[in-house]
Amino acid sequence: MGTDIACYMREVGRAAREASRVIGAADPKRKSRALRAIAEAVKDTREELEAANAVDMAAATAKGIDQPLIDRLLLDDRAIDRMIDGVLQVDQLPDPIGEISELAYRPSGFQVGRMRVPLGVIGIIYESRPNVTVDAASLCLKSGNACILRGGSEAFESNKAIAGCIERGLEQAGLPRTVVQLVNTTDRQAVGELLTLDEYVDVIVPRGGKGLIERVSRESRIPVIKHLDGVCHVYIDDAADPEMAIAVAVNSKTEKYAVCNALETLLIAEPIANKVLPVLAERFGEAGVELRGCEKTRRLLPDINIAEEEDWYAEYLSPILAVKIVDGVEHAIAHINTYGSQHTDTIVSNDYARSRKFCTEVDSASVLVNVSTQFADGFEYGLGAEVGISTDKLHVRGPVGLEGLTSQKFVVFGNGEIRHR
Amino acid sequence: MGTDIACYMREVGRAAREASRVIGAADPKRKSRALRAIAEAVKDTREELEAANAVDMAAATAKGIDQPLIDRLLLDDRAIDRMIDGVLQVDQLPDPIGEISELAYRPSGFQVGRMRVPLGVIGIIYESRPNVTVDAASLCLKSGNACILRGGSEAFESNKAIAGCIERGLEQAGLPRTVVQLVNTTDRQAVGELLTLDEYVDVIVPRGGKGLIERVSRESRIPVIKHLDGVCHVYIDDAADPEMAIAVAVNSKTEKYAVCNALETLLIAEPIANKVLPVLAERFGEAGVELRGCEKTRRLLPDINIAEEEDWYAEYLSPILAVKIVDGVEHAIAHINTYGSQHTDTIVSNDYARSRKFCTEVDSASVLVNVSTQFADGFEYGLGAEVGISTDKLHVRGPVGLEGLTSQKFVVFGNGEIRHR
Repeated sequence: MGTDIACYMREVGRAAREASRVIGAADPKRKSRALRAIAEAVKDTREELEAANAVDMAAATAKGIDQPLIDRLLLDDRAIDRMIDGVLQVDQLPDPIGEISELAYRPSGFQVGRMRVPLGVIGIIYESRPNVTVDAASLCLKSGNACILRGGSEAFESNKAIAGCIERGLEQAGLPRTVVQLVNTTDRQAVGELLTLDEYVDVIVPRGGKGLIERVSRESRIPVIKHLDGVCHVYIDDAADPEMAIAVAVNSKTEKYAVCNALETLLIAEPIANKVLPVLAERFGEAGVELRGCEKTRRLLPDINIAEEEDWYAEYLSPILAVKIVDGVEHAIAHINTYGSQHTDTIVSNDYARSRKFCTEVDSASVLVNVSTQFADGFEYGLGAEVGISTDKLHVRGPVGLEGLTSQKFVVFGNGEIRHR
Repeated sequence: MGTDIACYMREVGRAAREASRVIGAADPKRKSRALRAIAEAVKDTREELEAANAVDMAAATAKGIDQPLIDRLLLDDRAIDRMIDGVLQVDQLPDPIGEISELAYRPSGFQVGRMRVPLGVIGIIYESRPNVTVDAASLCLKSGNACILRGGSEAFESNKAIAGCIERGLEQAGLPRTVVQLVNTTDRQAVGELLTLDEYVDVIVPRGGKGLIERVSRESRIPVIKHLDGVCHVYIDDAADPEMAIAVAVNSKTEKYAVCNALETLLIAEPIANKVLPVLAERFGEAGVELRGCEKTRRLLPDINIAEEEDWYAEYLSPILAVKIVDGVEHAIAHINTYGSQHTDTIVSNDYARSRKFCTEVDSASVLVNVSTQFADGFEYGLGAEVGISTDKLHVRGPVGLEGLTSQKFVVFGNGEIRHR
């Protein structure tokens, strides 16, 4: 069995590499035809999708899987409508491939420019949500990449049914069905094999919990676009408008708790602390958020618990918030660069020099001025849809959209120039 | 001793991370002052540099090291002049840091843009040429990065003397000397330790032979910008001007043999083969280049040796050239994408559709039309100077200049926007 899976995965890899040559050279019209055909196929297969999903749901319920996971597994009419809309939205995005930028003459006589090209083959490893199957496939297709999808075992039947729709759409557009391949086994060994196929796979995108991402990063011989913690900060500067500061801080925490762009540590400049902290305590109290504060914070709010060293590193993803009073913007930046996760951080300030300084010196994928951290995502940034949010520094930082699935090569147009050194 | 080196390297990494915050926020004027002071320091230290180099040269000669390696080790007046010019040229390049592009309003009311930022800490591992010490340091400095330099053991004394000049230049500009750190031991363990410092080092750039690059890629826990083989092709299409085709093919091979952008396999469309091959054979014969051909080539040139399967993969770096007759552009592209190393490939053709097809479908870092492959480098492309040539697809492809040492983060400028989903 071990060797079987290894051979199967190599064959999947080889087929993906071959398909990547076709999809990489496909013109925008053909890719658009495929996306529209996939949307149609999903629409026409609604009942079968729901039936396949019912099998997964029954198995998950029988296994006693947690309710939030089961909720994420459900493919009802609304979820299927969202999948269809998602594919059609990706179809509407501008095609990134083939764009040549910075084309300019060089002293030797030829022109040099950069052409945007697909990465090649993308491996996506994800957990229970079956909608990722079609979301990821459509982004890869639009950006001219072949992809290998490895979904969670709980969603296996749903994913197979969705992959069937994708295959029909590809075939209707005259593209090889191997442009999108779903791994046809729930055996965990398949993931390990996928991570060794560096000859065939150009990048791995893990989407899921911390455990999955850490395993993938550790084992992969292929570059990984990864998204680890979101330990996000709001810094309230003493030059902030207090009402704006309170609104931004409360929204950054409470709009959604379990998202990676939710606020986890609030930093407040000492001169404004006694003005904003009592109101913040009231507003967070109403929302049911537990505050944990530094010594100075507790002098103003004696009833709250003390924040320990580990609280400054914590990604709570729940109604808990660490609060620290800092000397000013320098101190805030130092705290964020030490304890943060280089994800998303906001300054609330009306001071020109400090807001510039914060933007320049905070070493995070998204740095915001006077905006709730909850906006940090691909849709809000105009990327259309996102494959994930990268906290790496190489290749892409922040929300990864179509462009993050591409690269640039150099093109040189000449007239027979030869070199004499 | 083992633990000592581990502790020493961790301390180097920690100091580099700290210094990266300072150099990352330094304004262009200060970086320019440092670069000019480094050039001055090298100029003023000429005799000491030559004395230190003499120690390395004597040791290398005594060890019986190969002449080409010894030549590369030499720091004479000319080599020192080139080092000084190199630093001053980097100083003249536009500062890439802080540039904000694509800043645009989004429907939610704020503006989103991308700010160019340093990567942070760059580890550079290189072999015998001591000039890399100052070249790499100046590129890192200009792009706002701290760096850790690990040079070859044969150049240890020369590198220490050059690093002394860099430290003086940094100090004169009021920057920490830890912005550029030379690893102060020739123990190979130091390389292994460097590759594990993922907490402190953001990217590793190996510069040297294949053995070094493979070791680094295998062992590194940090992303690597790597440059492996250059198996470069020229494809002579039947719509080529024969004289241009011959000139480009001969120059691509013979201008320099031991460079990664030298031609290694020549592909010729069948209809034009009998016209160009005899002239090419004569010209290559005069230059002393051995040809190895496919069966069809040998029908036209019966005296040459046959090319075996491994010849299509070979990076000769010497006066040997593999020659293959192909059906046309499709066949040429398939050959390049199968046997090539995704480095640099040229089509010679006057056909519009075929040259476009070649540009789009050849999956290499540089794709050229009617230009010698020997031009594929950072200077010719206008990047100023190069840290290396990347054959990876993520982050940067092709010559890596200042921009390859940077990344982009998102910046968002708002007016207190909060989100309601």
